[in-house]
Amino acid sequence: MPATTMKALRKVRPERGAQLETVPVPSIGPNEVLVRVRAASICGTDLHIYGWDRWSQSRIKPPLTFGHEFCGVVERVGEEVSAVAPGEFVSAEMHVNCGHCHQCRVGEAHICQNLRIIGIDQDGCFAEFVRIPATNIWKIDPAIPEHYAAILDPLGNAVHAVLAGPVAGQTVLVTGCGPIGLMAIAVAKACGSSSVFATEVNDWRREMAKKMGADVVLNPAEGDAVARIKKDTAGTGVDVLLEMSGNQGAIAQGFRALRAGGRASLLGIPSNPVSLDLVNDVIFKGATVRGIYGRRMFETWVQMTSLLKAGRLNLDPLFGERTSLEKFDEAFSLLQGGHAGKVLFYPNGKPR
Amino acid sequence: MPATTMKALRKVRPERGAQLETVPVPSIGPNEVLVRVRAASICGTDLHIYGWDRWSQSRIKPPLTFGHEFCGVVERVGEEVSAVAPGEFVSAEMHVNCGHCHQCRVGEAHICQNLRIIGIDQDGCFAEFVRIPATNIWKIDPAIPEHYAAILDPLGNAVHAVLAGPVAGQTVLVTGCGPIGLMAIAVAKACGSSSVFATEVNDWRREMAKKMGADVVLNPAEGDAVARIKKDTAGTGVDVLLEMSGNQGAIAQGFRALRAGGRASLLGIPSNPVSLDLVNDVIFKGATVRGIYGRRMFETWVQMTSLLKAGRLNLDPLFGERTSLEKFDEAFSLLQGGHAGKVLFYPNGKPR
Amino acid sequence: MPATTMKALRKVRPERGAQLETVPVPSIGPNEVLVRVRAASICGTDLHIYGWDRWSQSRIKPPLTFGHEFCGVVERVGEEVSAVAPGEFVSAEMHVNCGHCHQCRVGEAHICQNLRIIGIDQDGCFAEFVRIPATNIWKIDPAIPEHYAAILDPLGNAVHAVLAGPVAGQTVLVTGCGPIGLMAIAVAKACGSSSVFATEVNDWRREMAKKMGADVVLNPAEGDAVARIKKDTAGTGVDVLLEMSGNQGAIAQGFRALRAGGRASLLGIPSNPVSLDLVNDVIFKGATVRGIYGRRMFETWVQMTSLLKAGRLNLDPLFGERTSLEKFDEAFSLLQGGHAGKVLFYPNGKPR
Amino acid sequence: MPATTMKALRKVRPERGAQLETVPVPSIGPNEVLVRVRAASICGTDLHIYGWDRWSQSRIKPPLTFGHEFCGVVERVGEEVSAVAPGEFVSAEMHVNCGHCHQCRVGEAHICQNLRIIGIDQDGCFAEFVRIPATNIWKIDPAIPEHYAAILDPLGNAVHAVLAGPVAGQTVLVTGCGPIGLMAIAVAKACGSSSVFATEVNDWRREMAKKMGADVVLNPAEGDAVARIKKDTAGTGVDVLLEMSGNQGAIAQGFRALRAGGRASLLGIPSNPVSLDLVNDVIFKGATVRGIYGRRMFETWVQMTSLLKAGRLNLDPLFGERTSLEKFDEAFSLLQGGHAGKVLFYPNGKPR
Repeated sequence: MPATTMKALRKVRPERGAQLETVPVPSIGPNEVLVRVRAASICGTDLHIYGWDRWSQSRIKPPLTFGHEFCGVVERVGEEVSAVAPGEFVSAEMHVNCGHCHQCRVGEAHICQNLRIIGIDQDGCFAEFVRIPATNIWKIDPAIPEHYAAILDPLGNAVHAVLAGPVAGQTVLVTGCGPIGLMAIAVAKACGSSSVFATEVNDWRREMAKKMGADVVLNPAEGDAVARIKKDTAGTGVDVLLEMSGNQGAIAQGFRALRAGGRASLLGIPSNPVSLDLVNDVIFKGATVRGIYGRRMFETWVQMTSLLKAGRLNLDPLFGERTSLEKFDEAFSLLQGGHAGKVLFYPNGKPR
Repeated sequence: MPATTMKALRKVRPERGAQLETVPVPSIGPNEVLVRVRAASICGTDLHIYGWDRWSQSRIKPPLTFGHEFCGVVERVGEEVSAVAPGEFVSAEMHVNCGHCHQCRVGEAHICQNLRIIGIDQDGCFAEFVRIPATNIWKIDPAIPEHYAAILDPLGNAVHAVLAGPVAGQTVLVTGCGPIGLMAIAVAKACGSSSVFATEVNDWRREMAKKMGADVVLNPAEGDAVARIKKDTAGTGVDVLLEMSGNQGAIAQGFRALRAGGRASLLGIPSNPVSLDLVNDVIFKGATVRGIYGRRMFETWVQMTSLLKAGRLNLDPLFGERTSLEKFDEAFSLLQGGHAGKVLFYPNGKPR
Repeated sequence: MPATTMKALRKVRPERGAQLETVPVPSIGPNEVLVRVRAASICGTDLHIYGWDRWSQSRIKPPLTFGHEFCGVVERVGEEVSAVAPGEFVSAEMHVNCGHCHQCRVGEAHICQNLRIIGIDQDGCFAEFVRIPATNIWKIDPAIPEHYAAILDPLGNAVHAVLAGPVAGQTVLVTGCGPIGLMAIAVAKACGSSSVFATEVNDWRREMAKKMGADVVLNPAEGDAVARIKKDTAGTGVDVLLEMSGNQGAIAQGFRALRAGGRASLLGIPSNPVSLDLVNDVIFKGATVRGIYGRRMFETWVQMTSLLKAGRLNLDPLFGERTSLEKFDEAFSLLQGGHAGKVLFYPNGKPR
Repeated sequence: MPATTMKALRKVRPERGAQLETVPVPSIGPNEVLVRVRAASICGTDLHIYGWDRWSQSRIKPPLTFGHEFCGVVERVGEEVSAVAPGEFVSAEMHVNCGHCHQCRVGEAHICQNLRIIGIDQDGCFAEFVRIPATNIWKIDPAIPEHYAAILDPLGNAVHAVLAGPVAGQTVLVTGCGPIGLMAIAVAKACGSSSVFATEVNDWRREMAKKMGADVVLNPAEGDAVARIKKDTAGTGVDVLLEMSGNQGAIAQGFRALRAGGRASLLGIPSNPVSLDLVNDVIFKGATVRGIYGRRMFETWVQMTSLLKAGRLNLDPLFGERTSLEKFDEAFSLLQGGHAGKVLFYPNGKPR
């Protein structure tokens, strides 16, 4: 007999913290899929929800099971679902698009006007089971290990940012080495970038940047990072800027280090308006700036799956603790210091 | 016997104003061309030089013959020049690239690291003759009238801005209706844009915007231009923003009116750093921003010549006074009010 | 009380001809829409089905209601349908994609591996009602007249072919002036092409090509069309080839007339393998060849709707007879001569 | 005192063979550079010239020093040359463009209408010295070894073919594993392709393909290569075809193995017109076909230099004999069997 209740990590009250509760297993509609979660990964956004910052207060409506990075095994499918079957190993795009707005119609579903996010606007994956629309399911080759499969959401951010323009034979600067910045380093190298520069103030993250393959890792708090990058590129600057920090100073440095004619992918989220020297950094430079949000549905998923299956990405250094849902407080504390890799929950038993 | 001296409009002292002088006809090197100027057009930059603003003070080294928009007839060519001959009707790209920097090598000569501008960094075309490197000469089909041929430089700016991304079947917003903004309206319509919106505070320019083909012309000082544009685009916003004003408020409005997934070409030159809501205007929107400088050498020239020859651009409403070099003070005064079209000098005799 | 039976033009036996029958009105599933057909247009493919050629014999499984170009008014919608409502004026993409193959996942649904075509693989629109999946419905601005709305399918082919590469300021050659070739002429002009050349052996169609806006219309059976095109393009050749004939000779001529670095969109369907001088026509030329099938779902639909709403396309010369389903034999005869424009059926009453 | 004569390998008579002669050192014009050749590599084209095949008979005008792949040290420069100086380590683009045809003006100098090739249309690099226009000189980082620097011409062909469309996260098929095909395998892997398939009938070359990094190497003469590729790509086919053979059968197989929506780069030169199933292989497939000729000037050079400097390409397995000009007969014999890697001449002394 199938389970009717399950454990779920939930924000139940509009305040800091979270609570592990027993709730009903979600029921699914005709076009939906129920997935038994194998591994779920904690995103920076989950930290914001846990900490109940200003953004969370305006967006999250408790009670909510949060979490939006995961992999698992299909438990059952709705009656109209034919493309996926129980027992299959899957992850999912957690951004749910409407299918009929302008953006959905022109192949830009990732910036749908009516986007809803599972784990933010409806119950997510920090639970034994999660309910997903069938079209959002992404089947995973069993050759890809569980811990990799659990972080396709942020890896997709990185792949989307890197491949939003040419990268083969190009010099790249990654500003900000949080998890997505670190993944972007590996992706850029795998896709043929020549030199990858990285800037980061946090010592532990700079160490990680080297492990992920960055050629030159700089602390912008010590010495003139822009001057160094210009020097190493014969005075020209880098071809590609991958802005992952959201920090005003890093953004300004990144643009100054970008060559005329270069491309900037902006992914980091500044908390305030940003002052830009548009004339010198964008206009006279003939630069191209790409805003990066989510992952292209599903071009990015194809690209990253293909890179992973072919063994082109070594993400092992990224991973930190693997723990149970019960230990959520420790997990969030660990991450808040900024000195941990991706922390994974295993709601249905130990890592394989 | 060839002329040895000529009239030239020159900045001779580091102060406001200009002076009409008699100077030697330029001598040319083996790879250069001497052009007898037929018509020369006044650019906003020339107004800055005439008025001796802060930018001029830092960039211009008097004495200098200024002017950088013109057409004329080849008078003589250097000994190594084979691609153009005396008697041919020509204009010229006045941005002179070095040919060996990174940008020149990758087909981005318009953003050469060592760019020099004729009429700014060396003697220009407000004179009877002007000296031009042979590779910068652009031959003009005699079917194109002189007054059109004199404004290919700013028309090229407009074409570059419009064609820096898709425009056919797209909605377009032009913010700022100076000469380049006005030309951009005509170019966008000729290249298949569906609706063209234009915003401009100056009454005369709004009137001109209608004449150039804008479908909806708005005064952002009266009423909510962004709300109107959103309403007219079913809540989606425009596909393309052509920012021609350099004005902080207009830039902010332009980005708010841009749809998620849209493209912004930035050409207007802000005089200060600009504060941008990067998160909502670029990142979450998945927008593409293109800095536009000069004209692509020479893709843009091919495109605009082709459009002109085919009679696809009616620029007639744009033209104002046609006068002689002697009347330069009246010409500059006229333009400073912002209520005049393109004013042309004819240094070698009357318009044909 | 809703109608339970309807008239439908059907292929009932594996032989030449068709039959007007009374059949049940289709019942719809939860994600489907029933449309009352206003105007339906006859495609060349319908002629093949009527004539029962070799292709039809291998693909069509009688009994089948054929027809796949139409517009109409939504009669009713399935219970899961929210994006469209009864009474709305619509057309539809008749290529039904699977949603989960590689191509569907990477934004290329128009070349889905499991594509089914309404009117070919299942009952089509030569009837009072037609059943359509909700996601394939395309809402139409009531400003667009019925006869235009009925031919969005072939117009989409033309728009897809023209916009598969740059066209603004480009010279274009259309080889073959059947309905799609003729539409392509109008689309290319509306999107900024400078000169449009057209080649066609049929006198009536050459006359039509002029009406649609072609600048130079040539009969390849009389005189050297390639030489003429080369001469008119200063020896360079055209930037863009739109191959609409499927004819070996026209394809060869088209490639010879294409400039080095040019782009060819191939849409016409050759009935046999084609012999190409790959070295001189493609490789040494650095040409780009794009295979064009169907319409991009739904970028092309957005583009063409936008052009139509803005009044950028005058397709009036294209239209021929407007008739009733009962007169199908006359309609097909008329078309088989190749001397008629688009012929429309009005299954539910006269044209408005 | 500078040398006035030099050794040169020349085609002196219109017949099979070549002759090592003593000839004057070339004199240079004001915009030219004289380079002392360090290493020169034999291209398949040189074999054709040596063997005096039909193509050679129509193109080559003896007497001619042939050879067009090399590196060397600048000996002296013309008076107008400022971008390169004696003593610098260089290679050169041997395709000399006119600078003023349509293609040169739109950034497609590699397909210039008036292209001349050094080593084919004028004296080449199988000599102690070679004369090169200054703008064709490509400076090489001394970190790049001489034998790599000598083969930038064919490596550029490979890079141009691979990067003529997306390759990161894509499956690739290389048909034909001559030197350029082999290099293309390494380039594709370095630029993020997931699986690289290669087909080749020659045993030695199949062995080489594995060494260069191909994931699956197939002999099309044994078993159904297309079926195998389809099977390994879940029935979809490859994203990218790199056609390097010029062989009718291989071209047909390549297109059948290409997925709908895929991209084919055609570089191999068929000796006769090719019969293509345009309908199924290009049109219905919505495929993109790119003709590849030479190297983009100089985007491709930047890309390959960048990849080489960063150590992203291991080309060591490719190299065969390194010999003196005197041993040209042995060198050509060796290559004619198709069982040798790149053979290099060292006209000015031994390899370092």
